[in-house]
Amino acid sequence: MSREQFLEQLISTLGADVAQRGAEVPQRFWTDWSGTPPVQPLALVRPRSTEDVSALLRLCSQHRVAVVPQGGLTGLAGAAVPAQDAVAVSLERMNAIEEVNAQTGLMQVQAGVTLQTVQETAVNAGMVFGVDLGARGSCQIGGNVSTNAGGNGVLQHGMMRDQVLGLEVVLADGSVLPMLRPMIKNNTGYDLKQFFIGAEGTLGIVTRVLLRLRPAPQATATTLVAMPDFDSALAVLKRMQSRFGNSVAAYELMWDSFVQASMSWLKLSAPFAERHPLLALINIDGKDEAQLQSEMQEVLEQAMEAGEVLDAIVAQSVAQAQTLWKLREAPAELNNHMHPAINFDVSLPQADIGRFAEACEAAFTARWPGKHSLYFGHVGDGNLHVSVDGKTVNGECDAVEAELYGLVAAFKGSVSAEHGIGLHKKPYLYASRTPQELAAMRAIKLALDPLSLMNPGKVF
Amino acid sequence: MSREQFLEQLISTLGADVAQRGAEVPQRFWTDWSGTPPVQPLALVRPRSTEDVSALLRLCSQHRVAVVPQGGLTGLAGAAVPAQDAVAVSLERMNAIEEVNAQTGLMQVQAGVTLQTVQETAVNAGMVFGVDLGARGSCQIGGNVSTNAGGNGVLQHGMMRDQVLGLEVVLADGSVLPMLRPMIKNNTGYDLKQFFIGAEGTLGIVTRVLLRLRPAPQATATTLVAMPDFDSALAVLKRMQSRFGNSVAAYELMWDSFVQASMSWLKLSAPFAERHPLLALINIDGKDEAQLQSEMQEVLEQAMEAGEVLDAIVAQSVAQAQTLWKLREAPAELNNHMHPAINFDVSLPQADIGRFAEACEAAFTARWPGKHSLYFGHVGDGNLHVSVDGKTVNGECDAVEAELYGLVAAFKGSVSAEHGIGLHKKPYLYASRTPQELAAMRAIKLALDPLSLMNPGKVF
Repeated sequence: MSREQFLEQLISTLGADVAQRGAEVPQRFWTDWSGTPPVQPLALVRPRSTEDVSALLRLCSQHRVAVVPQGGLTGLAGAAVPAQDAVAVSLERMNAIEEVNAQTGLMQVQAGVTLQTVQETAVNAGMVFGVDLGARGSCQIGGNVSTNAGGNGVLQHGMMRDQVLGLEVVLADGSVLPMLRPMIKNNTGYDLKQFFIGAEGTLGIVTRVLLRLRPAPQATATTLVAMPDFDSALAVLKRMQSRFGNSVAAYELMWDSFVQASMSWLKLSAPFAERHPLLALINIDGKDEAQLQSEMQEVLEQAMEAGEVLDAIVAQSVAQAQTLWKLREAPAELNNHMHPAINFDVSLPQADIGRFAEACEAAFTARWPGKHSLYFGHVGDGNLHVSVDGKTVNGECDAVEAELYGLVAAFKGSVSAEHGIGLHKKPYLYASRTPQELAAMRAIKLALDPLSLMNPGKVF
Repeated sequence: MSREQFLEQLISTLGADVAQRGAEVPQRFWTDWSGTPPVQPLALVRPRSTEDVSALLRLCSQHRVAVVPQGGLTGLAGAAVPAQDAVAVSLERMNAIEEVNAQTGLMQVQAGVTLQTVQETAVNAGMVFGVDLGARGSCQIGGNVSTNAGGNGVLQHGMMRDQVLGLEVVLADGSVLPMLRPMIKNNTGYDLKQFFIGAEGTLGIVTRVLLRLRPAPQATATTLVAMPDFDSALAVLKRMQSRFGNSVAAYELMWDSFVQASMSWLKLSAPFAERHPLLALINIDGKDEAQLQSEMQEVLEQAMEAGEVLDAIVAQSVAQAQTLWKLREAPAELNNHMHPAINFDVSLPQADIGRFAEACEAAFTARWPGKHSLYFGHVGDGNLHVSVDGKTVNGECDAVEAELYGLVAAFKGSVSAEHGIGLHKKPYLYASRTPQELAAMRAIKLALDPLSLMNPGKVF
């Protein structure tokens, strides 16, 4: 059957409203936030139901046509970028909140709902959702599941995997796995849903998600802390955790280069009179805001006496806390200002993050004189982000990657903490996993997708 | 090659110290705590290293001989019971603690170390380990991983899955997967280790485990609370959680039948002057014991005024807390007193647990006049245990199971919350999962164990 005949059958099966030919596909579906060159897919399907997804995958399976699942297209590794001979499947129309139950702490949603809608729905029900990240307004829950998203809440609530109680997934042959039982404990055979979390759409399409919500904190205190060096930042984190335990809800570190970029791009005024090597944004949850602020102040004063803290602002209102957190929003602007940005998302042994950042900066400066790179991250869980200005390194993306990933290997880190492998990190997957591990991954891939039609060319 | 030739090769490859013929295998390896009739295996192998395990599996793979992995043999579903034509592999000699690091909160161990040793090692390092269960002195970490163990700490720290940061696993063909990277965040391809957690030894043998430790609470307060009915128990749980959040470390509910059995078997004196329908053991973690006790007292007084609490004891010392917790230790004695016990481990929607227990008792009494069953469980996470006296139901185990699992289905629960499927719950796996889910599980099983040599006949 020709491609043309396949397209005709696709449209007649799903309807012209759901399925479009490549030439009619809006450009916004051609690429994602990773900066990958746009590709016009063979067709775009925007299903309205699990049945639509199942019918699509059955048809593609019969005709050996590949499928690229798409969420909010905010990924930074290129996992959702279309292929010319593949059908792109956007979940954006499957965006219903199907159930919210504050009593049981559960929310069931379709995969195409945005993270922000999930967060707001949880708050309206008197709970909170455990994952938060900059792309919240655009990224979709199905994409968060497929990439095992991280973000600002991992320290307290874990990764996306830890928020998922159930999944509905459509396999490559169109069969539906209804793994949506609302049980915290359910040891009946393999925990199949785990296989699809973080699989980047290579094993099936996530169509529904049963999420765990967390109790809303009665109060949150926020502080922005200036520190002289990375060891001080770790010391302050330990002080906070030993005082507040698991109530330390966020500990986001920003190197000065990042803070300066953020102020310039987002037109923010300087938080402190002086510039400091490192700033940390810290949220602590608790019962009483005034008491939290006073306890936080106490810890900060001790840290200041120990020379770990140079200056600090404790937010006195929700509005002030939001203003402080604006400083952390620069990553959404990276591609507008960094020509384009070469982005990294690495995991490192926590104690080594400071030395790693210094080593990167030294390596970049030695090769490309001048300032090029921003450093920021979720230091509480060992995750550092690095963004390099593509122009100032003469667009030598491969050389920048080789420098940085060489250092990741030397520091025994991981090349992807939370963004995934997608297209962009495939060469480094082979450096991060043993041949035996890769063989096991491939065996599982073939078991669930024997024709290799699900997001081919991604991850592997 | 004959069985005899295989045995000779096995012994010559691994040494007579590591491999023994069936006739020489001590009876303690013939069955587990599930009450399954003992089976003498073809041979017993007690490896001293991952290399031993790998050599064994290569040999078994070459000769198409099945393998049954064994931990502490405390399982209640029969997953570690040998088969006549299979080699039993006990991990008991691989019991080293390889690394403990309080700074990073990590502990690396060999799979055969007991849970209790892990717990004590964590405490000695100033941390705690998140999983606790009655068999702690005998059960092994590898078995805890393979069954995704639950227990008393799930409310606060999650299941075993949530404590595992890395695994080393030997696959059926002898290849070793070294998934021990000490990274909280590591999205590089499929999170392979997830596939082996809860797989009950059907996908490979766990040889090493990298565990996350939790910060030790500075203080813990314990109370034993008497309540008139299940709805009151839920109301008290909500009161405690809304006051203490995630610091509610345990909430173990015991119906009076269980409490009476516990007092009689363990020769304990009655905690209260009167008998009450339900008792809850509650642990709350915090910073200051006296303050915790006074806050706990305050919550209990409010609950008493609301009629939810009939009586309560707040432990005034660690020794008194330990005495109160003795009441919960009866399950280790079940098989000595219940001729034998028919044990259940079900998950239910939390709000329905009380009605479910009543419905079970009514169904049992209607069919077998008299009292037969004990009810207890980790109510905070929806998990109820039921034990039925085998003698008083005339040993009609199948009929008891049919009654109870019928009710589980009617209440939309799960037939195994934490014990797993093993041998005993296989008929009910098929009622708990759809044919599509079972097909996906089988595909994964075949992908990783194409000759079906790993713990055959278990789970599926």
